[in-house]
Amino acid sequence: MKWEENVRKVVPYTPGEQPQKAGVIKLNTNENPYAPAPGVAKAAAALNVEKLRLYPAFPEKTELMEALAAHYQIGTDQIFIGVGSDDVLSIAFMTFFQSDKPVFFPDITYSFYDVWADVYGIPYERKALDADFQICPADYCKPNGGVIFPNPNAPTGVLMPLEKVEEIVAANRDVVVIVDEAYIDFGGTSALPLIDKYDNLLVVQTFSKSRSMAGMRIGFCMGHPALIRYLNDVKYSVNSYTLNTAALALGVEAVRDEAYFRECCQKIIQTREKAEEELTKRGFIFPKSYANFIFASHKTIPAREIFERLKENDIYVRWWNKERIDNYLRITIGTDEQMEALYRALYEICG
Amino acid sequence: MKWEENVRKVVPYTPGEQPQKAGVIKLNTNENPYAPAPGVAKAAAALNVEKLRLYPAFPEKTELMEALAAHYQIGTDQIFIGVGSDDVLSIAFMTFFQSDKPVFFPDITYSFYDVWADVYGIPYERKALDADFQICPADYCKPNGGVIFPNPNAPTGVLMPLEKVEEIVAANRDVVVIVDEAYIDFGGTSALPLIDKYDNLLVVQTFSKSRSMAGMRIGFCMGHPALIRYLNDVKYSVNSYTLNTAALALGVEAVRDEAYFRECCQKIIQTREKAEEELTKRGFIFPKSYANFIFASHKTIPAREIFERLKENDIYVRWWNKERIDNYLRITIGTDEQMEALYRALYEICG
Repeated sequence: MKWEENVRKVVPYTPGEQPQKAGVIKLNTNENPYAPAPGVAKAAAALNVEKLRLYPAFPEKTELMEALAAHYQIGTDQIFIGVGSDDVLSIAFMTFFQSDKPVFFPDITYSFYDVWADVYGIPYERKALDADFQICPADYCKPNGGVIFPNPNAPTGVLMPLEKVEEIVAANRDVVVIVDEAYIDFGGTSALPLIDKYDNLLVVQTFSKSRSMAGMRIGFCMGHPALIRYLNDVKYSVNSYTLNTAALALGVEAVRDEAYFRECCQKIIQTREKAEEELTKRGFIFPKSYANFIFASHKTIPAREIFERLKENDIYVRWWNKERIDNYLRITIGTDEQMEALYRALYEICG
Repeated sequence: MKWEENVRKVVPYTPGEQPQKAGVIKLNTNENPYAPAPGVAKAAAALNVEKLRLYPAFPEKTELMEALAAHYQIGTDQIFIGVGSDDVLSIAFMTFFQSDKPVFFPDITYSFYDVWADVYGIPYERKALDADFQICPADYCKPNGGVIFPNPNAPTGVLMPLEKVEEIVAANRDVVVIVDEAYIDFGGTSALPLIDKYDNLLVVQTFSKSRSMAGMRIGFCMGHPALIRYLNDVKYSVNSYTLNTAALALGVEAVRDEAYFRECCQKIIQTREKAEEELTKRGFIFPKSYANFIFASHKTIPAREIFERLKENDIYVRWWNKERIDNYLRITIGTDEQMEALYRALYEICG
């Protein structure tokens, strides 16, 4: 077709499978196995459907913003909310990575980073993790157009200590450093306290993992008010109203129930510790994880084979046909019952 | 701050005010005065909140897609769904307007077009409407990088007859022509039947106006499957999961209730006809509107003055401090009761 010449052609990100079959044990997309906080169901029941005829409120004028500010003990002018952390990250790429110099991120990392860079025409360089899947801060302390990395890293689960994070932020005061903390609540230490010290630091978090709200698409980031203003300007240049009225209402309750939040995270951490024992017994090796998944390789059986045999047993984990990581499985931490089923299946496959 | 040098700086779109005060008559953002279809409230009550822990389904595998395909009698591969038509339009700008030649749109039109063009670095040329606010098809039949216009146009409400729309589409087979039909259900004739004839035509619609769902942020477009595939590729390169589970569920019911939909549109058209009489009596002139608003100018009193005096009476309409249109008010059609209050206030102001 004649119009195709002027079309943007991209290779999109491929998300994990979403099997629709009932009875599947879904350990492939890092969803939380526990329901959202009980208050979320109450907020859903109380939703004023008549009001849906009106545009949603702007996030900065919502209770959700106030709840986040109260929870994290920061100002509402230090928070930006988006449609999942993917939306926040995508807008941050558009806003802050405008240099001719390459943006730096790890070679093994969240596979959306290079997709965003490609779609927005941002130059980038991948920095290799070391043999233990650790980020080497020195690699990020050379001239660049910005830095982004997840902490804990995905899909490895490896946590960088806060002093190393600070080293990278401090060495890059002339660009924006984005720390993508999607998994920070499962035992890591957030870089959030550093935002008052470094105006070039943006800390991104999400409701999709630790707050059990993947289905509502809520993400946010925290940083200096000037960073937040630039993000808002770009956001209001793309779509004024993104979070819908339901997300804004239900999100509040997920933030306010601190006790439930802590309890779910703690349960996942305990299940992860048990999983480390069980996987070790079955011949797996893996870096210590600080996320709600384990990135594991079997000593003798190829990852692909285990992946396929688990799938035959209706257990879905994630496997990538990608250099350096194609002998690894990313296994989301489910409930204890789901994990027991996994251990039984792995016993059949691996002995 | 040192990092500011490499930041994208933009002048964002300014949406209409969202007064939080109770008792305000809000005729400034073209919301529907009637509640969503009764089935929407039932779908909200039936929402499985436990399932919100899981990512939403991809739109193309949802009942919402099937409902739209059934309603519009087209294939699911001819539909793309987004977070409001702003999301759909923004992705379409990114995807299809990649030429070095300028994109054409009217000088008086939806004020997001130039904002998207600026944020994505797309060259554009504004084509002047004639003295009656009509689009001149000949202006759009010169070499360009794409064409977009609303039909009916915003904020004028002026409808272009379908044969003129076809003239523009047919003259531009080497680029994509986007017809933004946000207001088409209030008496216009959609270009939808032309999508089988012209693979370069994209027809964009929304749930925000005629389906009373501005608060849920659902928009969609229809076109040749190849257009839809390119849009999906870009969408999956930016954010895999955008519509949340609640929007996907509630949207279905807004599409399925054909009778309620027709009834609400008909009521708004009737109220608009009455408003035309009343506004004429009070000294206003305006082009015939085919939208859920009237774009009116008073013969003697400046628009700004009327705008401000209405606001003092807690009646919000829209006024732009912009060349060529700064003596016009865009008045959304509300309920008959809301409009009676408007007529009373205008009687005080204009006599």
